[in-house]
Amino acid sequence: MQSLKSHLCGEWVSGTGNALPLLNPSTEETIAEIASGGHDWKGALNYSREIGGRELRQLSFAQRGELLQNMAKVIHEGREELIALAIANGGNTRGDAKFDIDGASFTLAAYADIGASLGDTHIMVDGDSQQIGRTARFSAQHIRVPRAGVAVHINAFNFPAWGLAEKAAAALLAGMPVISKPATATALVSHRMIEMFLEKDILPKGALSFIAGSSGDLLSHLSGQDVLAFTGSSDTAQLLRAGDGVISRSVHINVEADSLNAAVLGPDVELGSETFGLFVRDVVRDMTQKTGQKCTAIRRVFVPDDRLSDVVEAVKEQLEGLVVGNPAVGRNVRMGPVATGNQYNDVRAGIEKLSAQTEEAYGGKGEIEALGADGKGFFIGPVLRVTKDPGNCEALHSDEVFGPVSTIGSFSGSADDAAKLVQMGQGGLVTSLYSDDRKYFADLVPQIAAYHGRLYLGSEKIAGQSPGPGTVMPTLLHGGPGRAGGGEELGGVRGMALYQQRTAIQGDKAILAAITGVK
Amino acid sequence: MQSLKSHLCGEWVSGTGNALPLLNPSTEETIAEIASGGHDWKGALNYSREIGGRELRQLSFAQRGELLQNMAKVIHEGREELIALAIANGGNTRGDAKFDIDGASFTLAAYADIGASLGDTHIMVDGDSQQIGRTARFSAQHIRVPRAGVAVHINAFNFPAWGLAEKAAAALLAGMPVISKPATATALVSHRMIEMFLEKDILPKGALSFIAGSSGDLLSHLSGQDVLAFTGSSDTAQLLRAGDGVISRSVHINVEADSLNAAVLGPDVELGSETFGLFVRDVVRDMTQKTGQKCTAIRRVFVPDDRLSDVVEAVKEQLEGLVVGNPAVGRNVRMGPVATGNQYNDVRAGIEKLSAQTEEAYGGKGEIEALGADGKGFFIGPVLRVTKDPGNCEALHSDEVFGPVSTIGSFSGSADDAAKLVQMGQGGLVTSLYSDDRKYFADLVPQIAAYHGRLYLGSEKIAGQSPGPGTVMPTLLHGGPGRAGGGEELGGVRGMALYQQRTAIQGDKAILAAITGVK
Repeated sequence: MQSLKSHLCGEWVSGTGNALPLLNPSTEETIAEIASGGHDWKGALNYSREIGGRELRQLSFAQRGELLQNMAKVIHEGREELIALAIANGGNTRGDAKFDIDGASFTLAAYADIGASLGDTHIMVDGDSQQIGRTARFSAQHIRVPRAGVAVHINAFNFPAWGLAEKAAAALLAGMPVISKPATATALVSHRMIEMFLEKDILPKGALSFIAGSSGDLLSHLSGQDVLAFTGSSDTAQLLRAGDGVISRSVHINVEADSLNAAVLGPDVELGSETFGLFVRDVVRDMTQKTGQKCTAIRRVFVPDDRLSDVVEAVKEQLEGLVVGNPAVGRNVRMGPVATGNQYNDVRAGIEKLSAQTEEAYGGKGEIEALGADGKGFFIGPVLRVTKDPGNCEALHSDEVFGPVSTIGSFSGSADDAAKLVQMGQGGLVTSLYSDDRKYFADLVPQIAAYHGRLYLGSEKIAGQSPGPGTVMPTLLHGGPGRAGGGEELGGVRGMALYQQRTAIQGDKAILAAITGVK
Repeated sequence: MQSLKSHLCGEWVSGTGNALPLLNPSTEETIAEIASGGHDWKGALNYSREIGGRELRQLSFAQRGELLQNMAKVIHEGREELIALAIANGGNTRGDAKFDIDGASFTLAAYADIGASLGDTHIMVDGDSQQIGRTARFSAQHIRVPRAGVAVHINAFNFPAWGLAEKAAAALLAGMPVISKPATATALVSHRMIEMFLEKDILPKGALSFIAGSSGDLLSHLSGQDVLAFTGSSDTAQLLRAGDGVISRSVHINVEADSLNAAVLGPDVELGSETFGLFVRDVVRDMTQKTGQKCTAIRRVFVPDDRLSDVVEAVKEQLEGLVVGNPAVGRNVRMGPVATGNQYNDVRAGIEKLSAQTEEAYGGKGEIEALGADGKGFFIGPVLRVTKDPGNCEALHSDEVFGPVSTIGSFSGSADDAAKLVQMGQGGLVTSLYSDDRKYFADLVPQIAAYHGRLYLGSEKIAGQSPGPGTVMPTLLHGGPGRAGGGEELGGVRGMALYQQRTAIQGDKAILAAITGVK
């Protein structure tokens, strides 16, 4: 059996101690293993900081952009192999696997373009030059430079390709070396990506290291020039944030955690309209794509009281033909298992909790006979719940059930009431609003924008070209306040800020120009 | 005796329990007291969030700018009264007091100008509109909106006017209500400022509340829409950061803490040159202004080996005539006491520690006969230490001695060696470099920028118009990584980001325009 190694200090190294199994979640077969004891974490951090940092800082933005372009190309070339691994280790359908892997190469390519546009320079200027003295001679300029440490990336199990690529793209382009740690259970795809990068020899020495399995006490060795970026549960995020080293040395930390993303149907939207169709497609896609295991998936659906039965019927209609099963056994399988046994138990527990406070609309509590499963695998069928009193349904607003589960709540339809319900999620990654009434948007958006990193406004005119709210775009912010962790990833150059120190330099205008290259 | 009240929920309220005395640090006389028990913190937070937040969000940026302009005007009109309080409660010289109070009104006025330039709008756009679909119809725009909570400001004892104004300016302009808490020991100036604002009735209801004394368990009630901004010691910052509520609810936090600011004399700078004169003036000003109690003051001075004796002589010459004493007894007093008995003990302990690793150059260990003191008061004379081996002087790089104390270390003079010494401070607010050699700046700045929020480049051409590195400017970033806390204050609109949620909105271009007002 394959035993995954880490890549630290420029070489592949085996871990010691107990090996953890990596399963195929459709069959529960063990397909690889990871042992992760015995690593010299302090040495690994120093190697990345010193060797990787030096190598990357020597490159201009344009050169780092080329590096990202090469990474995108290598992923694209290895696409079929990675898709097979995602099906085997992640329970992905072929479509799910492409979503993850193409998302990775698309994001790297988008940051490559940003690198090209920043050009052959090493220092990014931030805003205009300012006169700060009596004469223009005494001026100031804000600049951005790469932090002098290492960026540690801890990714979630659901996007082993995209998660790694998205964080690495922003950090590497900013000029910081990366140590990337995927979730152990689904690490095969990430591990193979790193192997591919090394086989093609496209990475500068020390620029991108890899942890298979646990990161041990690595985080306690972080310094004030280091960055920690985490995607995963709020509980784990809290442990990381409370770490001694993180707190005492002001480690820069970015968290993307739980999110009870909402979708609101405006009262103007008629059954059968383009906008109604878009809304239903988005809800169903987010329930079923990646078996509902997307941090951006719609969990809470709010519809006007007089639309409730229409919406429930329309969603049920699309769920009814859906084949759930082992994606390896048939191309008609449209939804695979959840990724792990732990996730299976968590989702089942979440459905139980929701069920106590909502009514059934479709799928019971997720019991299902999956295609080609023979009683094995972590399969849960799509579950639709309903409530006519969403404002008094505590579980709906506090527990992210990370699977193919959604709840529809009916309400008055007014913008003010919609805002109150959306806000009850206490901060999220994205909320989607569906309407063709500009006033409805203009009333609602200012009331809920502060609670989100992104708002998706669905309407007739964009219905034909929208990827839905669940698709994270490299040039748009990804992250949200409160429960969602308070972080900011992506958003083009915005996502690079985490990896950069912003510094004001003040002095003789001619000296500033000699440093920045800006006249 | 005056007993200071808090201003919470729109009214002045007395605290209960033991009263703490506020002293005159020159005479040790008690001049006021504060009792701070018994307040309803949860109620106070909610009042600010609901009433203050609503009032401020109704105002446009331009209107909030007018509010700041009025605050600046009120402070300026009350200047003489505030100066007298700063002398009595802070041990400030008249010059020190003006520096603090004029800094407050100048910063408010600068943010008022930013408000005017942002105009009669409520939503700030962030970057350009982007096409994200097949056609330009499907677009995205990043916006910034005020967070929906309250900004809690905890300020340091050294700048009761400027500290309050600087944080309040950015928060109020962004549209967030403020609860401001000055350090108890020197709270008289802040308290009087709030009284003046209320007497002139220039503040919207709930926009600016005030805590006299301890904030009790207020911080445990913060939510994910709230902000905590703190200026003070690293130790206190760590306690705040580790607070349960802060960690579990992703409270947005900004810290400005310890900083061992460095000054580097370039090897090209000749004795007697304009640049040499600027350098010596800056070092002496930072040792003596506010009795060295500035977070931006130069603590570590690095000079080429062959300049050491010249620099020591030049600094000593300026320190020799300096009169230390009670600023109330004579206009020729150029340096007052440190602000509190605790500070006195801390500074004396810091000098002891430094003395074990450095040689004396001037002022012994700070023992001094202060003018008009009669054996009372927290007086410490200026202390200059010297070392020929600054790279092996641990205390120099790790203990911020917050008083009239500076250490000169000699080194090779090379940019690389200067960078290593500067970096040993592990992150600071500002470092100043003095040279007329552009290459020296171009070599050094990229090596140390990541460790600072601001770099001050002193040279001949700006010598006649420079306020020195210790002056914080509203349009330039204030904050630094690592030991300095990792925060960002001021910097014009940059300082407003802490109080704003950045949100990507995506949809029909015409709908986005209806929300943002940008075509």
